[in-house]
Amino acid sequence: MSYLEQINSPADLKKLNISQMQTLASEIRDAILNRDSTVGGHVGPNLGIVETAIALHYVFNSPRDKIVWDVSHQCYPHKLLTGRKEGFLTVEGMQKISGYTNQDESEHDFFKVGHTSTSVSLACGLAKARNLRGEKHNVIAVIGDGSLSGGEALEGFSNAAVLNSNIIIILNDNEMSIAENHGGLYTNLRLLRETNGKAECNMFKALGFDYHYVADGNSLEAMIDVLNKTKDTNRPTVIHIHTLKGKGYALAEQDKEPWHWSVPFNLKDGSPKWNMSGENYNDITYDYLLKKIKNDPTVVAVNAGTPGVFGLNAERRKVLGEHFVDVGIAEEHGVAFTSALAKGGCKPIFMVMSSFIQRTYDQLSQDLALNNNPAVILVAWGGISGADMTHLCSFDISMISNIPNLVYLAPTTVEEYLAMLDWGLEQNKHPVVIRMPKEIVHTTANVDKNYDNLNTYQTAAQGKDVAIIAAGSFFGLGQQVAEELKKHHLTPTLINPRYLTGVDKSCLEKLKAEHKLVITLEDGELDGGFGEKVGRFYGPSEMKVLNYGSFKEFTDRADLTDLYNRYHLTVKQIVDDILQNI
Amino acid sequence: MSYLEQINSPADLKKLNISQMQTLASEIRDAILNRDSTVGGHVGPNLGIVETAIALHYVFNSPRDKIVWDVSHQCYPHKLLTGRKEGFLTVEGMQKISGYTNQDESEHDFFKVGHTSTSVSLACGLAKARNLRGEKHNVIAVIGDGSLSGGEALEGFSNAAVLNSNIIIILNDNEMSIAENHGGLYTNLRLLRETNGKAECNMFKALGFDYHYVADGNSLEAMIDVLNKTKDTNRPTVIHIHTLKGKGYALAEQDKEPWHWSVPFNLKDGSPKWNMSGENYNDITYDYLLKKIKNDPTVVAVNAGTPGVFGLNAERRKVLGEHFVDVGIAEEHGVAFTSALAKGGCKPIFMVMSSFIQRTYDQLSQDLALNNNPAVILVAWGGISGADMTHLCSFDISMISNIPNLVYLAPTTVEEYLAMLDWGLEQNKHPVVIRMPKEIVHTTANVDKNYDNLNTYQTAAQGKDVAIIAAGSFFGLGQQVAEELKKHHLTPTLINPRYLTGVDKSCLEKLKAEHKLVITLEDGELDGGFGEKVGRFYGPSEMKVLNYGSFKEFTDRADLTDLYNRYHLTVKQIVDDILQNI
Repeated sequence: MSYLEQINSPADLKKLNISQMQTLASEIRDAILNRDSTVGGHVGPNLGIVETAIALHYVFNSPRDKIVWDVSHQCYPHKLLTGRKEGFLTVEGMQKISGYTNQDESEHDFFKVGHTSTSVSLACGLAKARNLRGEKHNVIAVIGDGSLSGGEALEGFSNAAVLNSNIIIILNDNEMSIAENHGGLYTNLRLLRETNGKAECNMFKALGFDYHYVADGNSLEAMIDVLNKTKDTNRPTVIHIHTLKGKGYALAEQDKEPWHWSVPFNLKDGSPKWNMSGENYNDITYDYLLKKIKNDPTVVAVNAGTPGVFGLNAERRKVLGEHFVDVGIAEEHGVAFTSALAKGGCKPIFMVMSSFIQRTYDQLSQDLALNNNPAVILVAWGGISGADMTHLCSFDISMISNIPNLVYLAPTTVEEYLAMLDWGLEQNKHPVVIRMPKEIVHTTANVDKNYDNLNTYQTAAQGKDVAIIAAGSFFGLGQQVAEELKKHHLTPTLINPRYLTGVDKSCLEKLKAEHKLVITLEDGELDGGFGEKVGRFYGPSEMKVLNYGSFKEFTDRADLTDLYNRYHLTVKQIVDDILQNI
Repeated sequence: MSYLEQINSPADLKKLNISQMQTLASEIRDAILNRDSTVGGHVGPNLGIVETAIALHYVFNSPRDKIVWDVSHQCYPHKLLTGRKEGFLTVEGMQKISGYTNQDESEHDFFKVGHTSTSVSLACGLAKARNLRGEKHNVIAVIGDGSLSGGEALEGFSNAAVLNSNIIIILNDNEMSIAENHGGLYTNLRLLRETNGKAECNMFKALGFDYHYVADGNSLEAMIDVLNKTKDTNRPTVIHIHTLKGKGYALAEQDKEPWHWSVPFNLKDGSPKWNMSGENYNDITYDYLLKKIKNDPTVVAVNAGTPGVFGLNAERRKVLGEHFVDVGIAEEHGVAFTSALAKGGCKPIFMVMSSFIQRTYDQLSQDLALNNNPAVILVAWGGISGADMTHLCSFDISMISNIPNLVYLAPTTVEEYLAMLDWGLEQNKHPVVIRMPKEIVHTTANVDKNYDNLNTYQTAAQGKDVAIIAAGSFFGLGQQVAEELKKHHLTPTLINPRYLTGVDKSCLEKLKAEHKLVITLEDGELDGGFGEKVGRFYGPSEMKVLNYGSFKEFTDRADLTDLYNRYHLTVKQIVDDILQNI
């Protein structure tokens, strides 16, 4: 019987000695790799933090002592030690237990976390609550592996430093973010590593923290020692630990960036179990940028610590050279920086995933839109998905399209996407946001090159009675609905609105003559979305309007078929609705 | 003829000697005080930065060299030196020239800025653009006076430090934010002041900056000297200057917080020209909190560096003691901290101005709503206003109400406000946002104490044909419209929706029987707002819907009467619309 099998809660861990715990660490690594290779997930972050998690649960008394895991993509060892082994052993278990902390799963988790840089602020709140309630326990935040650079974390550090009470921040310095580190913060971490934590110039001490350095954060003894020393301290404390990302799996130790996260893979050689070849928007975008940059030295791509989302691996980044800037996980800076690049006469494109653009509402509004600088923002993965509740991508239309001055475009084909990208970079009147389509669809039809005439919808097929306004990645759904309606002897009008940020009054006005029903389809939240703008236009008229999209809710690793059914997004449901309302 | 009269651009400044510039500094202070005492504005920030602005324009060549002013509430001396004297001498001029930088006003301004902590990121973008374009000039960011603590600034510093080229950051350390400083960042600034910049533990050096300290940042010679030394540097450089906030106006030097910003005042004794007495929501809220805290030690108010917005002056903060936390200008931390306070068993209320809650979209979504912690967020000043374009408060409904799980309440009277506040703090199911009403209205009617039954609208008057759903601060407008309609022999239904985050399906369904037209009134942006949700509900029905609110646009110090006219928000316009559509 393995040690892991004997551990159902941290209490069981406390019975082991160091040598037994070292064996346990190895078993935990096997369990992590079993899960990751089977269903995919975060590899390097979890393999590197095993000894820290064991030491934390050995020294502290969770859940009385409270551990907050930043980003929580490194919470697997913690889950294995807190009664959730099943999530790593069987496929059913893996589907049940998520890859992030979740207080509904276990009393040892305190927050649902998937966006970075939040742990210190959250820990501050728990610590202040403890103080106000006259309780005594430790509050621990575990941060690092890229998450240090986000503004929220830095605000958190500054506030934690003046708490005047117990708060312990474990800074996991594995010399990496998702990709390599960027920013002056890491200059200081390097100096501290090189001086074994002894350099006088120490930003944590500067803020007012007690500071400890652990040269080998993968040493169980060293970790237990430092935690024993700091446990029950009454001072804000930073424990800076140096760990090896990917520890225990040679491929992940050697090639850290691609092994940050992986699709299911063969353990032996690391080869992916999924076939991911074929035409895709990342290659298309990279090829476009490369060509563009060759002819125009002012074109520059900006990304905030997630180049992999756009397929910009180390090799491609090297080719792009000074025309690619990774600002680290610092999306707010990314948007402001991009806006100023445009003001300074460059043609910048900020590339960001839908879920993470949420971190930049005020920068989109103030730094970019208010200043009306002609920068381009490229949003990836926007739409309804089966993602973890912390990484949903269905809110971007609602968030972006109600900010003045922004032009949010939803291309429907590869050709339209490239035309919009090029227009966005070449024009000098508007901040332009483009929602990268999901599926590769080509068109042989002529595609407009110029989008200066804002909010002009394109009629793909002129019909009557019913008009289908199908935006972006749902244009295909609109086409299917139109085809199906023909079987019911209807000839619907099909419209590609192209712009998510406004209505084409002239187009909508004209529809009134021969149409009784307009339906809108958008791949995202209904509330505050595109369809409601169309609905508002028709409010005082006789036109009936049906809006289709997702509900205002956080879904969690949902089955897409179930979601579409629940949202009435199947062709059959939509056609039935239309037939009932016509 | 004064020196100020002779200065129409920075070129004129360069002709003066130090002694003449010192006289000019005094004239500039008089001009600042003339504007502030006449039309109100930022007092202390501008008086403190006069010598810096003179030295910058003396040493550098603006607009070739580019100066980015953070928050830009300290840009008055810069405006006086760049051809905008009129904004400080005559009332017409004061109305023409805004209190913030604006590239439409002058080629010496590069951005419209009013939210804090953006200058370093914006300067990074200008510097990178310069590098890509092969240009040579200096890029200077002026930050401080509170704006250092925002996450965007810290992301910016980390990125600026690794630019490997010219960027000069003037850190104006006047020992103050709007109120006193909070956070570990200021621990280090103090150490650096006390060691004349010589302490080894220096967070700017830690990040990789060249660092200079100027003990007297109000010394023209010292400022010119340090700028001459750093001009044309190829290194990221921080110049930490110690200045006196409010310098030159004794009242502002002595009592810095109330003199950060002032309404028009009498220069002689500082007394306000406006009468600001009478019942108000700040006093009501403070009294409520005080009573609450006396009976419950877990109640805690949180604010991000703007206690004055809520009338929480130094005296009141002292009374609230450990039940009040100012996290500094760090709104993101503020929301996460507040969410965790609720998770930790406290009853927190985060108090924030509508324009600044924009900085927390992702924290509202991830740290708060996803976790469904029962914290309260109190939003002040929400609504259509004549504010500067950088401080508009008309977007909060659209931003907040489309995030899942949040319950956004719009009270219409003092009694309803207090009932909602109390319910929000006492319930444990939802994150609750409350929009502080604008005008004091009392009711003698019974007010619900329990808002558990989400999205239940309240019918204030049952009528037929027309239903008016009037939210929050526009409920009074709804009442006026209803009264006016009676003169036209209509008996409208009047509804107080109370909840901005959803529709009362049962209430709306019932209206179908005897109503032909529903109108919605909300004090904020139409796009993505409350009314569109009502519109979507009625989309497939025969009901006509008219939505009233503001357009999706940045207005700038607009006349409210003009705005209301343009938005069709006068009683007469609304009544006319109704009569036409019924």
